[in-house]
Amino acid sequence: MRIALDAMGGDHAPGEIVRGAVQGALAHPDVTVILVGKQDAINRLLDEDRRPANVRVVHATEEVAMDESPVDAIRKKKDSSLKRAVDLVKGGEAEAAISAGNTGAMVAASTMILRTQPGIQKAGIAAILPTLNGFGVLLDVGANVNAKSLHLYHYALMGTVYARAMFGGDERVSVGLLSIGEEDAKGNELVKETNAIFTQSPLNFVGNVEGGDIFKGKATVVVCEGFVGNVVLKT
Amino acid sequence: MRIALDAMGGDHAPGEIVRGAVQGALAHPDVTVILVGKQDAINRLLDEDRRPANVRVVHATEEVAMDESPVDAIRKKKDSSLKRAVDLVKGGEAEAAISAGNTGAMVAASTMILRTQPGIQKAGIAAILPTLNGFGVLLDVGANVNAKSLHLYHYALMGTVYARAMFGGDERVSVGLLSIGEEDAKGNELVKETNAIFTQSPLNFVGNVEGGDIFKGKATVVVCEGFVGNVVLKT
Repeated sequence: MRIALDAMGGDHAPGEIVRGAVQGALAHPDVTVILVGKQDAINRLLDEDRRPANVRVVHATEEVAMDESPVDAIRKKKDSSLKRAVDLVKGGEAEAAISAGNTGAMVAASTMILRTQPGIQKAGIAAILPTLNGFGVLLDVGANVNAKSLHLYHYALMGTVYARAMFGGDERVSVGLLSIGEEDAKGNELVKETNAIFTQSPLNFVGNVEGGDIFKGKATVVVCEGFVGNVVLKT
Repeated sequence: MRIALDAMGGDHAPGEIVRGAVQGALAHPDVTVILVGKQDAINRLLDEDRRPANVRVVHATEEVAMDESPVDAIRKKKDSSLKRAVDLVKGGEAEAAISAGNTGAMVAASTMILRTQPGIQKAGIAAILPTLNGFGVLLDVGANVNAKSLHLYHYALMGTVYARAMFGGDERVSVGLLSIGEEDAKGNELVKETNAIFTQSPLNFVGNVEGGDIFKGKATVVVCEGFVGNVVLKT
């Protein structure tokens, strides 16, 4: 697997990013890490460190700042390290792109360059969280703050596929809908509408779950709209 | 101070409620605890325990179940222990009413019987949470899942008054608005609209705060809409 890594994004970039890339490359000889960003700076850092054979560098002249408008950043900075990392996936030169920088810009770049899967309307951000049973997936944690019930259904489908790929196992992946009570009738309008869709769907829907159930692992995939998910993640 | 306590509401009621009332009454001789509910059951429990002089019993024949529709429960069960506890406040026989039972019914009873303060449109539920600096108030944690920005402003005002009464201190009570980023431009439409109102208000508004800031104590009062607050509380 080849992973494109935005070397210029995140706190203490590019130093900590390059150090992490080297550690990762040494631990996983079968992965190629492609550091994307200002090549002089990256090469200088790689020379200080051990430069593993499975680390490559791709030059990009610009950087996306943390406070930049995501869509503007992708439209205007055609040669940003973040955008170039996603371009590598689009061009088939990498299987995944990672940035620790501007999250909104990463969502915008992924959506504009890679597009969503057929039938999926909105990108979501999934977080893997520890639970009493192992791990669970919470999504959306902030890509989409104006979610409709159909978006939440798409998140449930993507979360199910993602959990199966990440955690394996023979059992069907369980899905919960985050609400303020377990009863179907509790919650806001979005949750009530979504509960009805989930109930009639082929999802392995275990019903509404509450905040405390996320970490109890009552469902492997917990679905919520982006504002709530982001607050939960940061809480 | 006289406190009316719904003896029939909550897990393991009335046993645990009566035991708690006795403990509280012994610890606070200046407080009168008025246990409201089925007097035979309550008296039997008080006889098993020490019956402090500052515990009284007021009879009520009915009980509100946990899964009952709040408004229906208050309208139809005129002699429920929960409603009678609130009636005591209305009649000037108690200064506060407490129930560990059906939260929605308690909000409905308080709103229908006591009414909100002049100018305040909706009741909220405030939770006191530990912070790195001491304690903070988070509201609304679930009374109102269709909040408008004006409701959030009212919660900020009530939270400020409540925090001053509870925690004292000379400093002005700080207020934060729960969002998904500190920048004014981040958040959903409700948060953006509310941020503009808070900014122009006489509140000591410190800006938007994130999930992690609640427990850091970045603001003494953190305001959010009921769905989000309930999920945070249970998380």
